[in-house]
Amino acid sequence: MAHIALPDGLPGILGPMTAYPESAAALNGLAEVLLRGPSPLTPAERELIAAYVSRRNECVFCASTHAAVARAHYGDACGVVDQVLERGPDASLTDKMRALLVIADRVRQDGRSVTEADVARARTAGADDRTIHDTVLVAAAFCMFNRYVDGLGTWAPTEPAVYAQIGEMLAGTGYRTALPGGS
Amino acid sequence: MAHIALPDGLPGILGPMTAYPESAAALNGLAEVLLRGPSPLTPAERELIAAYVSRRNECVFCASTHAAVARAHYGDACGVVDQVLERGPDASLTDKMRALLVIADRVRQDGRSVTEADVARARTAGADDRTIHDTVLVAAAFCMFNRYVDGLGTWAPTEPAVYAQIGEMLAGTGYRTALPGGS
Repeated sequence: MAHIALPDGLPGILGPMTAYPESAAALNGLAEVLLRGPSPLTPAERELIAAYVSRRNECVFCASTHAAVARAHYGDACGVVDQVLERGPDASLTDKMRALLVIADRVRQDGRSVTEADVARARTAGADDRTIHDTVLVAAAFCMFNRYVDGLGTWAPTEPAVYAQIGEMLAGTGYRTALPGGS
Repeated sequence: MAHIALPDGLPGILGPMTAYPESAAALNGLAEVLLRGPSPLTPAERELIAAYVSRRNECVFCASTHAAVARAHYGDACGVVDQVLERGPDASLTDKMRALLVIADRVRQDGRSVTEADVARARTAGADDRTIHDTVLVAAAFCMFNRYVDGLGTWAPTEPAVYAQIGEMLAGTGYRTALPGGS
């Protein structure tokens, strides 16, 4: 059971976002900018980073949700999202994405653990400043979202079909309209 | 040196926020809602939670900045902010604030580590659902801000007077106008 009273039936972040709409609007605005706004990284790549960080933080709701959004963006026939969830930077990805997942996991553990060598590896593989910036900020943001979801003790559905539906919805219309009554 | 090119002379989060204004607007909007918007917790209490989480994450810029904002709000003659930085929930605070700092530090470590006993202690001391929600979200958000600041390798001034000035400014006019060109 969640640590505070939340609306019935809404999984994960949707409960506290519905109960506390002012912070929800700010959080969804941030998610929209970070995951769908202008960036050298595609929305699919940013959702993959979000899913990987959430998986490493063992936040079931966020990992399942953003993996589903990434699958919806990628049209994931070759299973790259599942590979990232299981193997992280050892997945079959471009060298750039592998290097960015390494940076994302460093940020997840402690921002100070990102090394010059990590950044150099990403640059050699084609990442520019903005790519590195966006990777760090997406990884940092999911350290917040994961803690919000799990720190309140919200529940996570176990049915993959639920996440597939959420994933299609978020990949299509984004975060600003993600809540009942959102506009 | 920071991991990416940033404007000269701007410490901590001000560098990446100035270089990347779209995400800065979303981040400052979130900070404004979380730290200064409607809440059963005063802005001083929320800044204290932010400073404590940042201190525990050893993010010098964020801890020094939000300690300074808290001092500006409290008119801190009795040194409660320094006590919290040094002793956390053992500082001379109300039972409620001590219980909330315990929850904040659990969220910082891992959202799943918040226990029913932690929440019950806070409730017994007078915390309602919204107080617990806001504590969890402020603590989670600073796990993001700390990682953004340190994951990019930004620099932190060492002069207390610099933070005192930032603290007075943020306590007075808030986060939406915190950047050069902010409005």
